[in-house]
Amino acid sequence: MFDANSIKALTFDVFGTVVDWRSSIIREGQALGRRKGLDVDWARFADAWRGLYQPSMDRVRRGEVPWIKLDDLHRASLGELLGEFKIGGLSEAEIDDLNRAWHRLDPWPDVVEGLTRLKQKFILATLSNGNVALIVNMARRAGLPWDAVLGAEVARHYKPQPEAYLTTAALLGLRLEQCLMVAAHNGDLKAASATGLRTAFVPRPAEYGPGQSRDVTPEREWDVIAKDFVDLAHRLGC
Amino acid sequence: MFDANSIKALTFDVFGTVVDWRSSIIREGQALGRRKGLDVDWARFADAWRGLYQPSMDRVRRGEVPWIKLDDLHRASLGELLGEFKIGGLSEAEIDDLNRAWHRLDPWPDVVEGLTRLKQKFILATLSNGNVALIVNMARRAGLPWDAVLGAEVARHYKPQPEAYLTTAALLGLRLEQCLMVAAHNGDLKAASATGLRTAFVPRPAEYGPGQSRDVTPEREWDVIAKDFVDLAHRLGC
Repeated sequence: MFDANSIKALTFDVFGTVVDWRSSIIREGQALGRRKGLDVDWARFADAWRGLYQPSMDRVRRGEVPWIKLDDLHRASLGELLGEFKIGGLSEAEIDDLNRAWHRLDPWPDVVEGLTRLKQKFILATLSNGNVALIVNMARRAGLPWDAVLGAEVARHYKPQPEAYLTTAALLGLRLEQCLMVAAHNGDLKAASATGLRTAFVPRPAEYGPGQSRDVTPEREWDVIAKDFVDLAHRLGC
Repeated sequence: MFDANSIKALTFDVFGTVVDWRSSIIREGQALGRRKGLDVDWARFADAWRGLYQPSMDRVRRGEVPWIKLDDLHRASLGELLGEFKIGGLSEAEIDDLNRAWHRLDPWPDVVEGLTRLKQKFILATLSNGNVALIVNMARRAGLPWDAVLGAEVARHYKPQPEAYLTTAALLGLRLEQCLMVAAHNGDLKAASATGLRTAFVPRPAEYGPGQSRDVTPEREWDVIAKDFVDLAHRLGC
């Protein structure tokens, strides 16, 4: 039996759950393309960049390389893609700026209102694979009222490794069951639940663009299932 | 030559610089004393508790014990003081609640206005020896608009050890000289400066109560010297 009053903190997945990375990366690419006269399918580019996300973290998870923060994984993936998409004529500064598009992702329309309401009752912390600077810069631009930016970089372990969840709860000074993991991804909630956190599913059926098949529906009876962050606030009594 | 435009983040000492720990601990002690009928000199108690602060961290700094967060150091010191001040009749829950008085410290009167102005231009991060939960709970109660809660617990090194400063700047994704350490304590600024951060001194001449002699004036030509946080915002062009 789930009791919202036993929850002290909400811990959030960010990419996909809080922000619409795909539309934002397409927007950034199109703006760059106009400035530089590039002819690129930016939707395909965004999908390809995100496609390298899990494989790049896998090398860190398996211990094949030492800890590398997400900004640097993104930058290495971008280097590959520039060749693959035949994007030339960019300076190092322009490539670095494109890499920082991940710091400039837009939230889904319900996010700021939902978080603002949730913050009245709960501690709001990020539990993202994004590095601290990325999440901080994103939050300042988008007005996301986090109480704490924690997660993978602070734990030096990428989700779904349990250390990411355990370290975040420990830093918040809370028992695991006092933390509610909020994510649009069943796999993230599965790992959070196995570690001992409570779980809230918020579907983002447009995250991967038209025709998305994965994570459209909850795959388990998660503790909370909400339509969006405003609905989540309502369901948690905010 | 100091140029405020080269600064991206302000990193803040918290106890003494942001919050008036002494008056707050006295207030918490007096409230407990009234509830429990205790006859205690709470000013002397607050000073004694804070007096054990550096010695307790020294054991961690020297590696005599593994990492212990400040909440737990405070709790061990409190255990000693209850005997010394002959404070009896408290339940474990009441003792734990008194220990969490450090989560309920009040800011100096200029702090919220100053931080709110500074946040428009700079990333605001804590670089405190206080643990993350303590600083997060304090911020929620007092309305302190931090962008990130970093510092000793995340670095697993207490200031003035250089790792505390280095880790905080690294997590913010910044070069050391893009960070301005704000503190009311010359020793903190000395360590920050030696590590490579820029420095701002804000005196808090009432931190230690009447007749304070230490840290009343800047002991070096720090990069910025301001009367309070509103004056700091003004001097940094906010």
